[in-house]
Amino acid sequence: MIGATGPTASVVITMGERDYDLAIIGAGPAGMTAAIYAVRSGLKTLLIDAGMAGGQLQISPEIENFPTWRKITGPELAEKMKQHTEDYLSMHEFEAVEDISRDDEGRFVLSTPKGEYRSRAIILTTGASHRKLGAPGEEEFAGRGVSYCATCDGFFFRGKRVAMVGGGNTAAAEAIYLKSIGCEVVLIHRRDTLRAEKRYQDKLKEMGVEILYSHVVEEILGDQTVTGVRLKDLKSGEERVIEVSGVFISVGEDPHTALATKLGVELDDEGFIRVDRSMRTSERYIYAAGDVAGGVRQIIVACGEGAVAATSAYEDLVNPYWVKK
Amino acid sequence: MIGATGPTASVVITMGERDYDLAIIGAGPAGMTAAIYAVRSGLKTLLIDAGMAGGQLQISPEIENFPTWRKITGPELAEKMKQHTEDYLSMHEFEAVEDISRDDEGRFVLSTPKGEYRSRAIILTTGASHRKLGAPGEEEFAGRGVSYCATCDGFFFRGKRVAMVGGGNTAAAEAIYLKSIGCEVVLIHRRDTLRAEKRYQDKLKEMGVEILYSHVVEEILGDQTVTGVRLKDLKSGEERVIEVSGVFISVGEDPHTALATKLGVELDDEGFIRVDRSMRTSERYIYAAGDVAGGVRQIIVACGEGAVAATSAYEDLVNPYWVKK
Repeated sequence: MIGATGPTASVVITMGERDYDLAIIGAGPAGMTAAIYAVRSGLKTLLIDAGMAGGQLQISPEIENFPTWRKITGPELAEKMKQHTEDYLSMHEFEAVEDISRDDEGRFVLSTPKGEYRSRAIILTTGASHRKLGAPGEEEFAGRGVSYCATCDGFFFRGKRVAMVGGGNTAAAEAIYLKSIGCEVVLIHRRDTLRAEKRYQDKLKEMGVEILYSHVVEEILGDQTVTGVRLKDLKSGEERVIEVSGVFISVGEDPHTALATKLGVELDDEGFIRVDRSMRTSERYIYAAGDVAGGVRQIIVACGEGAVAATSAYEDLVNPYWVKK
Repeated sequence: MIGATGPTASVVITMGERDYDLAIIGAGPAGMTAAIYAVRSGLKTLLIDAGMAGGQLQISPEIENFPTWRKITGPELAEKMKQHTEDYLSMHEFEAVEDISRDDEGRFVLSTPKGEYRSRAIILTTGASHRKLGAPGEEEFAGRGVSYCATCDGFFFRGKRVAMVGGGNTAAAEAIYLKSIGCEVVLIHRRDTLRAEKRYQDKLKEMGVEILYSHVVEEILGDQTVTGVRLKDLKSGEERVIEVSGVFISVGEDPHTALATKLGVELDDEGFIRVDRSMRTSERYIYAAGDVAGGVRQIIVACGEGAVAATSAYEDLVNPYWVKK
């Protein structure tokens, strides 16, 4: 544990069990990497997550672009990161930070159902979640044919016809995954080209995934479970119904910025936390990394950012950049 | 291969064997990760290195802070990255880029002993090297007690006595780091004052780090590993030996910017390539990642930056940011 310095900081003479140098909120790839770096730097570190460690890795199908792992599933990669992180600290899983504020001495106060924690610095690695389509039937049939996670739910649809909605890398990857486990897949995209990498596009073609360009889902239909989707062809204006047993949705992400907003942290135009290259936010002693900080939302990038955020937090706790001569 | 677009770009109609969308110069962690991402995006990519793939990994002893690998040697990690990268392309090792320029159509022309290559975009991942002390024993005990990176290797010396050589901010920060993780630290500096900022000096004092001013390392001593250093007191001329298990050297880094300079790329105050968060440099279609771009010089960070640089290169080749409306 390092001592605090600087005119804006009070030196913590005695540090209780619930007092930390650094609190990292969110135990996905960014948070876990930040924790490894922070503890190695000698910071007394709290790593806390409202759910299970791993973040979106837990719902990621096969991953091929995390260097050193040629092919690995998200949950497997999460487990390896978790084991690595637990060499350094015991993480707090399934413990939501419900409120956050600053005390008179400038320390952060985190409230969870298990009580309060204090820290001198914060790294926000709260991630992002899947955006909803907003179509009628989407909420009604959630968990009954509507899914935001092919890896989690695809298994139930083997041998059946499903719609995959979206045009980015994730949508393409999930369509490929669904096809590979034995679904008949129709990819539905509102534009006339996919945003997905060429490799994904080639793979979709190679696997014979049907793609409906310039189509939107007007409604998700069903009885007890999903039975079809009503589509609109944006070019002709015509509507039609196709029969599917499942609808997988991958149309973007919403960053989890509720805590950031409470702390007065500046967001960018897309609603992600604004950071500089050192992962410092607009507020002193607050850093962000991973999906919540926007940028290129990839696992390896989140890890790199986590390491940078922890390094910046350490530097500022020892020698705040804003009081350097 | 994607087509080039935008008013500043000429569309490559026919592409010869030696014509690429992207050339990545330097096959360390940043370059290899950039290559994986670039090829997955459909870019025809050249990855070239004057030496062996892996960069400084090849001279790194045990690594504990690359998430998912709790303990691995540098060469092992390099080999895993290399295998992964070779799923995507055949890299050119031991082929130095001796000259670089731009042709009339704005393409980059790379000259090597094996001829010329052309590319529409460039990622510079040329790395940096730690400045050597030049003392006898320094090379002999490299990786066996002599280290140039406290963040990387300090953890292995917890509870032991180590020498930190240097007087700048990095040396001071690394001495503080080593002390905070439980090393007994002697800071050795050739001048009678440190160049490090006052806050670092205060912190060194507060933490009780011993400082030997006006001392130089005459020799690094050891058997299988480092056992001590022979010092010379520049004021009295006297020599003596102190026992240490490790010698950390922080007397500066030399980024490999010869090619960057030829291309007119802007450097920062410390001589590293200036980049923004998207790893774009001051020049269009030129990106940089890893140690040559400064910042936090860690393997996981270099990988993250490589992925970002490749993503930016891909985006600009498809849809240059400077012509986006």
